[in-house]
Amino acid sequence: MSITPLDELGRRARAASRVLGTASSAAKDDALRATAEVLVHRTAEVLEANDADVGRATHAGTADTVVDRLRLTAARVEAMADGLRQVAGLADPVGQVVEGWTRPNGLAIEKVRVPLGVVAVIYENRPNVTSDAFGLCLKAGNAAFLRGSSAALDSNRAIAGALRDGVSKAGLPADALVLVEETSHEAAIEFMRLREWVDCLVPRGGRSLIAAVLEHATVPYVIDGDGNCHVYVDEFADLEQALEIVVNAKTQRPSVCNAAESLVVHRSVAEAFLPRAASALAGVALVGDAASRSIEATIAEATDDDFGTEFLDLKMSVAVVGSLDEAIAHVNRFGTGHTEAICTRDLSSARRFTAEVDAAAVVVNASTRFTDGEQFGFGGEIGISTQKLHARGPMGLRELTTCKYVVTGNGQVRT
Amino acid sequence: MSITPLDELGRRARAASRVLGTASSAAKDDALRATAEVLVHRTAEVLEANDADVGRATHAGTADTVVDRLRLTAARVEAMADGLRQVAGLADPVGQVVEGWTRPNGLAIEKVRVPLGVVAVIYENRPNVTSDAFGLCLKAGNAAFLRGSSAALDSNRAIAGALRDGVSKAGLPADALVLVEETSHEAAIEFMRLREWVDCLVPRGGRSLIAAVLEHATVPYVIDGDGNCHVYVDEFADLEQALEIVVNAKTQRPSVCNAAESLVVHRSVAEAFLPRAASALAGVALVGDAASRSIEATIAEATDDDFGTEFLDLKMSVAVVGSLDEAIAHVNRFGTGHTEAICTRDLSSARRFTAEVDAAAVVVNASTRFTDGEQFGFGGEIGISTQKLHARGPMGLRELTTCKYVVTGNGQVRT
Repeated sequence: MSITPLDELGRRARAASRVLGTASSAAKDDALRATAEVLVHRTAEVLEANDADVGRATHAGTADTVVDRLRLTAARVEAMADGLRQVAGLADPVGQVVEGWTRPNGLAIEKVRVPLGVVAVIYENRPNVTSDAFGLCLKAGNAAFLRGSSAALDSNRAIAGALRDGVSKAGLPADALVLVEETSHEAAIEFMRLREWVDCLVPRGGRSLIAAVLEHATVPYVIDGDGNCHVYVDEFADLEQALEIVVNAKTQRPSVCNAAESLVVHRSVAEAFLPRAASALAGVALVGDAASRSIEATIAEATDDDFGTEFLDLKMSVAVVGSLDEAIAHVNRFGTGHTEAICTRDLSSARRFTAEVDAAAVVVNASTRFTDGEQFGFGGEIGISTQKLHARGPMGLRELTTCKYVVTGNGQVRT
Repeated sequence: MSITPLDELGRRARAASRVLGTASSAAKDDALRATAEVLVHRTAEVLEANDADVGRATHAGTADTVVDRLRLTAARVEAMADGLRQVAGLADPVGQVVEGWTRPNGLAIEKVRVPLGVVAVIYENRPNVTSDAFGLCLKAGNAAFLRGSSAALDSNRAIAGALRDGVSKAGLPADALVLVEETSHEAAIEFMRLREWVDCLVPRGGRSLIAAVLEHATVPYVIDGDGNCHVYVDEFADLEQALEIVVNAKTQRPSVCNAAESLVVHRSVAEAFLPRAASALAGVALVGDAASRSIEATIAEATDDDFGTEFLDLKMSVAVVGSLDEAIAHVNRFGTGHTEAICTRDLSSARRFTAEVDAAAVVVNASTRFTDGEQFGFGGEIGISTQKLHARGPMGLRELTTCKYVVTGNGQVRT
């Protein structure tokens, strides 16, 4: 097997992960604080590199919203450093004995939390991910093997350089962060197939990235997928409260995965609720089924595609259902397994919805916007998993670890 | 998207999984006991079908060991039924509140264990897997979507028919077990790509199956991989005890994944240990490095390939190392992340080995043969995972579940 440049980067990340895996919490926290310091100290250098990225993007006619996500300021660099200091303050998941027991033959078995090893992340324009992902990976004892986009390459190089120097200064291997600078599509595919070096890949990006991972990846991965989130207003809902929840879930930040995309209303409250919702959601383009349109004329006609679409915009689909069963079936048909909410005062409706809806998070009487590592109290997140294996929902430090069985005997053999 | 026959089977399994997911433990246990009864009642029919499989295999000149694994007897059918009854006696993992907490804003968050949904298993000749996998899946609230080999098709059909009738008799959907009867390679590839219907695939088979999964699967999977397991005899080992452990780990059942394949000995005890080991391992072909051969002449020359090979036979590689560091590096280089054992009386050696060796199970002073669902006390296993995501080590009922966040509020919205 010939060694490619990417292979060599993987080998370096693996070697660093062996050291990080047994580093003490104190050593990792010192390194996190050191990286924060170096990063702030090099603000000018980082901003200069970022200027080059922003200049290229602007010159290429990139959309303003994309350029905005790319652009750093001194305050944003300070916020990245703050994030690293905050991660230093979180509890270390590594070494936790998750459970332990003794078998009849005297064997003592402990299930111990250990780092994954090398965590790879593929991400798009936002350069702060370089720092955020690195911080969480390091705290959980993993080497971060990061591949950002070509548009952010200068910024990522400057940030990674500062972080590597900080780690190194604190006595841990600089290869705790290995940045892939080759950003071609072919290199991305090769990156997804480094089974020898990568223990977990977190692809953070759009549908084409996820499709490429499903098709080509041979490394284990956790999908941070779409959120086609619903709010179901039950026949027993507090309509006042439901209104606030729907408006918040849809409009508080429409561009994120835990924003609501679809409103499902029980027939018996549709006449009372839909006109008020349409007025409270002024500015949101509503598209709905026939029943919803017959009640509220401002709702345009929806296609089945609309019900399956994550708009990430001020647009929302509306469906009227005849029963809780129908509501659950609708949500399970069109949902993406992210976050689904019910507004109800009825215990049985709440229990059935939370039991029968198949999603990472099921929410009763609150906004869908709470599915988030910070909001859950994890102190940060590397993504929100919409798959069922390994991690489901917000992925914090704990989801960046695995477990190992430590079995201790005094000569036991099998008979 | 056109619906293929396999798609239709997947759709049925998904529909059944929705019912099983909220079935009570009592209902599932009743169904397990009913299937055991029907299975025993139909022993003659199952054995007749099995005779057809065995006849075809024998006629085709299949190796005796393979035919042996295919062959059923009345006692083996009874053992399958017993297995189902035992699973009925295990604790139900579904509904367990893994943890729960309340956020400052009053949101109550619970992490609740729920079934995966549809669990797909691809397996080779042994028809008892049909029953074993089904039992564990059902208990954990999952539909079992099973694809055995063409060689066992008649047996699997008869067993699956009995199990489906048993489930149905007990009032749960017969599609709790959906058997794929199309056993072509193309159908296997299609099976691995049913993302809409399959929540977790467990491939149980050889290297070519695993390679096909890595290359083609788009469904989430847990790899039940090779076990190139080592026993390291430390300089501080109790040599008498180490001898028993090595002999047991190598010879008690050489054909299984948790059997030892490699012996690593510290230089300072090699002269005392190797001749005794060679004599105790009479009948085992030993291949070793230069240092081991210079001490024990019956050891043949090993290649690097030998150190990386899971022999699954009465053959063992031998290496002499100069330090614990070298031993750990050797194990991490050649191991497959399954089970690695150290024999030592020294606390520091034991602690370093268990911390620094990267494997699902690290064993101190006991045989590698204990890495097993039954031996760990899980009451059964659907495989032994050698990957780090989701499950690592023996996969019991709990590993056939995922978690869901249930978030309960009283009108909370994000600001």
